[in-house]
Amino acid sequence: MKRYKIIIEYEGTDFVGWQRQDNGTSVQGLIEESIYNFSQEKVEVYGAGRTDAGVHALGQVAHFDLQKDIKTHKIRDAINHYLKPNLIAITQIEEVDSEFHARFSAKKRSYVYKILNRVPPAVLNKNKVWHVVKHLDIDNMQIAANHLVGKHDLTSFRSRHCQSSNPVKTIEEIRVVRDLDIVEIYISAPSFLHNQVRIIVGTLVKIGCGEWSLNKMEQAIKAKSRASAGPTAPPYGLYFLRVEY
Amino acid sequence: MKRYKIIIEYEGTDFVGWQRQDNGTSVQGLIEESIYNFSQEKVEVYGAGRTDAGVHALGQVAHFDLQKDIKTHKIRDAINHYLKPNLIAITQIEEVDSEFHARFSAKKRSYVYKILNRVPPAVLNKNKVWHVVKHLDIDNMQIAANHLVGKHDLTSFRSRHCQSSNPVKTIEEIRVVRDLDIVEIYISAPSFLHNQVRIIVGTLVKIGCGEWSLNKMEQAIKAKSRASAGPTAPPYGLYFLRVEY
Repeated sequence: MKRYKIIIEYEGTDFVGWQRQDNGTSVQGLIEESIYNFSQEKVEVYGAGRTDAGVHALGQVAHFDLQKDIKTHKIRDAINHYLKPNLIAITQIEEVDSEFHARFSAKKRSYVYKILNRVPPAVLNKNKVWHVVKHLDIDNMQIAANHLVGKHDLTSFRSRHCQSSNPVKTIEEIRVVRDLDIVEIYISAPSFLHNQVRIIVGTLVKIGCGEWSLNKMEQAIKAKSRASAGPTAPPYGLYFLRVEY
Repeated sequence: MKRYKIIIEYEGTDFVGWQRQDNGTSVQGLIEESIYNFSQEKVEVYGAGRTDAGVHALGQVAHFDLQKDIKTHKIRDAINHYLKPNLIAITQIEEVDSEFHARFSAKKRSYVYKILNRVPPAVLNKNKVWHVVKHLDIDNMQIAANHLVGKHDLTSFRSRHCQSSNPVKTIEEIRVVRDLDIVEIYISAPSFLHNQVRIIVGTLVKIGCGEWSLNKMEQAIKAKSRASAGPTAPPYGLYFLRVEY
């Protein structure tokens, strides 16, 4: 038996999210079906992190075990073959030792959130960016974001449905950059609470467009209440970018 | 009466192309309908260049005249309102003098052709790139492309249906760049023959992947025959980028 680590790109629009669910098509479920289709082995595919419906991935990581001995690039191509026409692709594959676990071995996870900041609607990047009309001041967003970096109780920045037993998380980096009409927010941390990135982005946008003053971020952190942070930004601007081990 | 210059972004997948046609939905037709919907004026919208079905635009330019006196940003927003849910947006608008003509005043047109160069299929940029599996040597592609720069009889690089009376064109620049898996080919010229960019790209890919030797480009130019050049690259990798006046 061999263990494989795969890197996965997907367009989240058509899926209920990463995780297998009864109510629709999941990325995890489709990859497991594709592995079964070529290998006749029923495997469980373990992802580095769950993503919600509509959220995209450029570098989701997962692992699975196979009994049959098949060359790695052939496994990759076979999975990709059976995944079509779903917008999911295995971009990289490598054999790893049996200790490796996509979720539990992960040291750092990185996301990027993309905003189209202009009056005209999204066209070429429809469903791939959050369209925000009001001009965003990225310097103010960066100043506000810096308050989140480090170890904090992030109760204000997690979904009411978050099942994590501990709301204290360490954010390593938040970087807000602009390239013409596109504002990108990069966030890295060992792990995240449910909806944490999207609530942080919703709060930063409130501050960036001037609806909220800069000190609202510190207040939101101190309040430890979901109501004190901004709205949850929509899923389609969010990309699971990378996992480091 | 005032004349307006507009810059237009569109996702070409769902359209028969820029130009109004009997057999389907065109970008030009939808913009003319949207202008009528808010102004009740039947106008003709003149584009800087035609694009084929599936071809995208980041910076198509067009002009039209309106009798009613309406603020430019209100015209832009009204057209964008009526264009929804079609993937077309007016990104910029300005009043120009009555001598301005989007097509005849144009001094330089620029296109970019995007290739996804990897084994796994296109996912997040599906319908937005040409997927080429064989590795492309962009240095060889650039050397071949340099032979096309300047004034040449480009009979080999135009569609058999091209209606231009003169196949001699001056290419100002061709630049081949790579960013990880994405290879981009930038081409600028005062004007282009029908399918010229896509046939040049098809030829460069033949050379870049090693199926054709480098000297095939010079041979193709000299041959003045469509059969001597490469295949026509698919429309969905092509973007009308910019027009200079």
